[in-house]
Amino acid sequence: MAKENKTELLNSINTPADVRALREEQLPQLCSELRDFIIEALSQNPGHFASSLGTVELTVALHYVFDTPNDKLVWDVGHQAYAHKILTGRRERFHTNRKLGGIKPFPSPQESEYDSFAAGHASNSISAALGLSVAASIQNRNEKVVAIIGDGSMSGGLAFEGLNNVSSTPNNALIILNDNNMSIDKSVGGMSQLLISMHSSKLYNKIRYAIARGLTRIGLLNRERAKSLTRFNNGLKAMLFKQNNIFEGMCTRYFGPIDGHDVRELVRMLRLVKDMQGPKMLHIHTVKGKGYEPAEKNATVWHQPGLFDAETGERIVSNGGSPRFQDVFGETLLELAKQNPKIVGITPAMPSGCSMNILGREMPDRFFDVGIAEGHAVTFSAGLARGGAMPFCNIYSSFMQRGYDNLIHDAALLKENMVLCLDRAGIVGEDGPTHHGAFDIAYLRPIPNLTIASPYDECELRRMMYTAQLPDKGTFVIRYPRGKGSLTDWRCPLEEIPVGKGRCLKEGDDVALLTLGPIGKLMEPVVESAAKEGVSVAHYDIRFVKPLDEEMLHAVGRKFKNIVTVEDGVISGGAGSAIIEFMAANGYTPLIHCIGIPDTFVEHGTTEQLYKICGMDKDTVLGTILQMKKQ
Amino acid sequence: MAKENKTELLNSINTPADVRALREEQLPQLCSELRDFIIEALSQNPGHFASSLGTVELTVALHYVFDTPNDKLVWDVGHQAYAHKILTGRRERFHTNRKLGGIKPFPSPQESEYDSFAAGHASNSISAALGLSVAASIQNRNEKVVAIIGDGSMSGGLAFEGLNNVSSTPNNALIILNDNNMSIDKSVGGMSQLLISMHSSKLYNKIRYAIARGLTRIGLLNRERAKSLTRFNNGLKAMLFKQNNIFEGMCTRYFGPIDGHDVRELVRMLRLVKDMQGPKMLHIHTVKGKGYEPAEKNATVWHQPGLFDAETGERIVSNGGSPRFQDVFGETLLELAKQNPKIVGITPAMPSGCSMNILGREMPDRFFDVGIAEGHAVTFSAGLARGGAMPFCNIYSSFMQRGYDNLIHDAALLKENMVLCLDRAGIVGEDGPTHHGAFDIAYLRPIPNLTIASPYDECELRRMMYTAQLPDKGTFVIRYPRGKGSLTDWRCPLEEIPVGKGRCLKEGDDVALLTLGPIGKLMEPVVESAAKEGVSVAHYDIRFVKPLDEEMLHAVGRKFKNIVTVEDGVISGGAGSAIIEFMAANGYTPLIHCIGIPDTFVEHGTTEQLYKICGMDKDTVLGTILQMKKQ
Repeated sequence: MAKENKTELLNSINTPADVRALREEQLPQLCSELRDFIIEALSQNPGHFASSLGTVELTVALHYVFDTPNDKLVWDVGHQAYAHKILTGRRERFHTNRKLGGIKPFPSPQESEYDSFAAGHASNSISAALGLSVAASIQNRNEKVVAIIGDGSMSGGLAFEGLNNVSSTPNNALIILNDNNMSIDKSVGGMSQLLISMHSSKLYNKIRYAIARGLTRIGLLNRERAKSLTRFNNGLKAMLFKQNNIFEGMCTRYFGPIDGHDVRELVRMLRLVKDMQGPKMLHIHTVKGKGYEPAEKNATVWHQPGLFDAETGERIVSNGGSPRFQDVFGETLLELAKQNPKIVGITPAMPSGCSMNILGREMPDRFFDVGIAEGHAVTFSAGLARGGAMPFCNIYSSFMQRGYDNLIHDAALLKENMVLCLDRAGIVGEDGPTHHGAFDIAYLRPIPNLTIASPYDECELRRMMYTAQLPDKGTFVIRYPRGKGSLTDWRCPLEEIPVGKGRCLKEGDDVALLTLGPIGKLMEPVVESAAKEGVSVAHYDIRFVKPLDEEMLHAVGRKFKNIVTVEDGVISGGAGSAIIEFMAANGYTPLIHCIGIPDTFVEHGTTEQLYKICGMDKDTVLGTILQMKKQ
Repeated sequence: MAKENKTELLNSINTPADVRALREEQLPQLCSELRDFIIEALSQNPGHFASSLGTVELTVALHYVFDTPNDKLVWDVGHQAYAHKILTGRRERFHTNRKLGGIKPFPSPQESEYDSFAAGHASNSISAALGLSVAASIQNRNEKVVAIIGDGSMSGGLAFEGLNNVSSTPNNALIILNDNNMSIDKSVGGMSQLLISMHSSKLYNKIRYAIARGLTRIGLLNRERAKSLTRFNNGLKAMLFKQNNIFEGMCTRYFGPIDGHDVRELVRMLRLVKDMQGPKMLHIHTVKGKGYEPAEKNATVWHQPGLFDAETGERIVSNGGSPRFQDVFGETLLELAKQNPKIVGITPAMPSGCSMNILGREMPDRFFDVGIAEGHAVTFSAGLARGGAMPFCNIYSSFMQRGYDNLIHDAALLKENMVLCLDRAGIVGEDGPTHHGAFDIAYLRPIPNLTIASPYDECELRRMMYTAQLPDKGTFVIRYPRGKGSLTDWRCPLEEIPVGKGRCLKEGDDVALLTLGPIGKLMEPVVESAAKEGVSVAHYDIRFVKPLDEEMLHAVGRKFKNIVTVEDGVISGGAGSAIIEFMAANGYTPLIHCIGIPDTFVEHGTTEQLYKICGMDKDTVLGTILQMKKQ
């Protein structure tokens, strides 16, 4: 295929119906063009790269065989779904992917009728597909439903719950297990081992596969025959092994593994299983980053590589300036672990994302990547704590929504001494609503015994981490945002800070500005600007949402009639809410204006853009303060 | 064994060391006495009955073989653990079980060093045991850790996540799968099928089991031999079946199934596996309610039977008066389902508890018991909703903590039209802290698009359910408490109520009393008593925490300088917090006193006792109102 006409076919595809109008022998070219398009597009507009290259053939085959959007495709995490977007009417807008007002970062039914379900968080596809399938069936609609789930997502308990129910509820769902030996980092756990062993134990599959190929090649296979083939397969299986694998053990028919980059083979297999009654699983093997050598070699780095040169494969990394909070976390954790032999690190599949790989490299025995399994990460940590270790469990704020009960039931109610670090807290920018770490303060605040802190800057993060691992600090949560901090010289000494004590950063007389976390740093110019306008603003760093600094707040309550709170999280139930609760409970009646993420929520875009939309930028805060003083 | 000396042995057991001092042939008698003791005790002081009878032999065998509390037992849900409590120093106080100030309802490390982990919510034992085991290992302590998990708990995703990690992390944990074909109601799903098939495919197990018995019977088995036996077993397995079952597929050694009521056999097997390196699973088969005929026959009813006559097996049921909220839910759901063919019901293993079995009996095709799998229950419901069905998903409030992310990510962000009914919301009484449905309002309130309602009485519940299933109502949460309502004639017509509209129940001038849910009904006498003291109280039923009735609240804000809110939930972030947020956001500065569950939380006891402790009883509320007026 010559470079010059590299989007010849793709340009003619406006909907999946156009894919279905192609001849089967044209599909490899379409795949090739699609892959080139993705590489080109993502080199200029960063996004999830390696996963999407791995599913090009599968996506083409699915839209070729299934009658989308009447038939439903449920993608498990949208990382996989760029080819799907491009084939479903979003090719020309694809350059707006993840940008403010542009294509959403993950598939969403709000955006396209081809996006059958939400796909931001992993492991939900089987449960969702079962729901769609049952809904179609009780309404007598003849729809096919396909869930496409990566092996990494299979480690999530929800996927198992879905699988467990798929096999017991009447439905026709097809589950495609997209097995690339990877989630975002490497897959972990027994399930992963099981899949590997399923790859490598080939005798049975070879026999069955050869039969299926033979029959279809000579054109003998229609639906009736497919059924009898299935029966034959089942009989063959029963003869060879009692329970071939977990999936059949759980009463779901299993096919594969097959090569997920052979589009015509995929088409053949999908046609074979498409009309079979009952739930079934097709196991395909793909390579993350397929067709782009640098990504094939290092899929973790190329999960979300940022800008790069499509020709050379060189990533365009902008270094310098302040470190990212995650790096400060990772470096400090190692530093602490060297001092405190009880410290262990736990991450659910985000060792690079949260920089716990720094600990992992130096102390592999004290580092636990538990796979995509947030609930387990928290309960496992609580078990470690009960056994006398000092766990640092790091989870992205929005994913922590999956470990909520575990935190309450297994840790906080028993005051277990453990540290939970919530990375990606607050607005996360381009990953959008499913990933905004917006709710954590609100959902954590009512939990008994918990300590909830957020650092003003990198040094505060280090001090909070140091403090949290001292004896008998109970269950200690530290939340901090995605991205860079504000300091260049961040290696301050590790010192204890008093739990439940805030800080007055600047005295003032007219308005009290109470901020939580690094957004407070962004507000420093506001205090100066207000002064120029003749308004004296006192700036307080709340630091601990729980326990609150009652002494400081009494002083604020006694002195100020005007209070503004700013936080990078939801207003409802958030840190500002804690402040007004305190004021109410103590009989203070100031005017309080709470700034944060509003109840209307916020879509995707750069963090700066979204701050502005939410009124969390410094101009809006300044305006609020000046307005308040006037009243 | 004669009745007269039925606690002869048991009376001599004050700690597990006393169990270990017995001769092996005395163990069956101890089991028998223990069983009699439990039956007698529970007939007079209600508790979890059937599960605890099923684990008598296992408990005795575990304490006999393992060096508790140095070795750790992790019970998965404490329903199973009454025999454990009785043998670990709590026999004489056992009559205080679940009572205010008495023994805690579930095992808790706060109560006993023999309780190695929290055990209120299901499916956490494997993750916790792994944590304990790894903690011991990194601190060079030689402890054994045993998780005891029922087959019902195995349907929870957390158990799978634990299993997945147990097999990939170095540890020596022993998992005992207590298989009784039951969770609280019947087990569902493929896992359950798998276990049944593992029972019934006997050839391999028979061979292996016979060998193990043979060796141990003739006294040849020591640790070295046990190891070689294991190797032999593995070889045998490899010959017979490639992957014998899910557990071995996931690299965990598997033994069983064996009879869980043969205490000497259990002792023998536990000794066999105790010192083996690496994770292993022992599958035992037990009968819920074992040894008490009525309970054996109907384990669901006898899960928590209330008072009964130990001799006759007759349950002492107090009927009459108002119906329970759960019954009103169940009856109304059926009524609605008859009118609206799109309605389906989903429950995670609580069909009797939430009365969805009423729907299940009449419309089995539209009823889905998904097992202990709250996350799946919510995502499956969201899938059903997206497919055009109208799901009513019913989950106990405290268990909903497990479906939090699912609600945000899969339902609310997409405004799926579905109804989530939270039963057991608020203080639940004797089940205590792990089961109080305390946090729901606080954790739900920040979620975008959600409607959150709580009915004042049974008729309001019916109207809310009717309203929620009308077209395009989005994701609609209705929370209501455990137990009885206030009406006898509750079959009111099914009428729509305006979403986001509260009610003024009584006008007044001095203090505004804003209540949410049925606790408002309990406050009616307060309004009257206050009037007698010369304080005119206006009583408002908030009804919707989200969206708030802004018109009503503006009226309140304009008129009142004194506001009291009462809710059956946490104060932090709760409904009262929503009210003060509203007042702050709109520039009203009344004194507001919020009454609810305080941040110190509350233990177990009767609901009335706990209301009093929290200051949620009518006397305290009256006192607060009178005090406020005086100021």
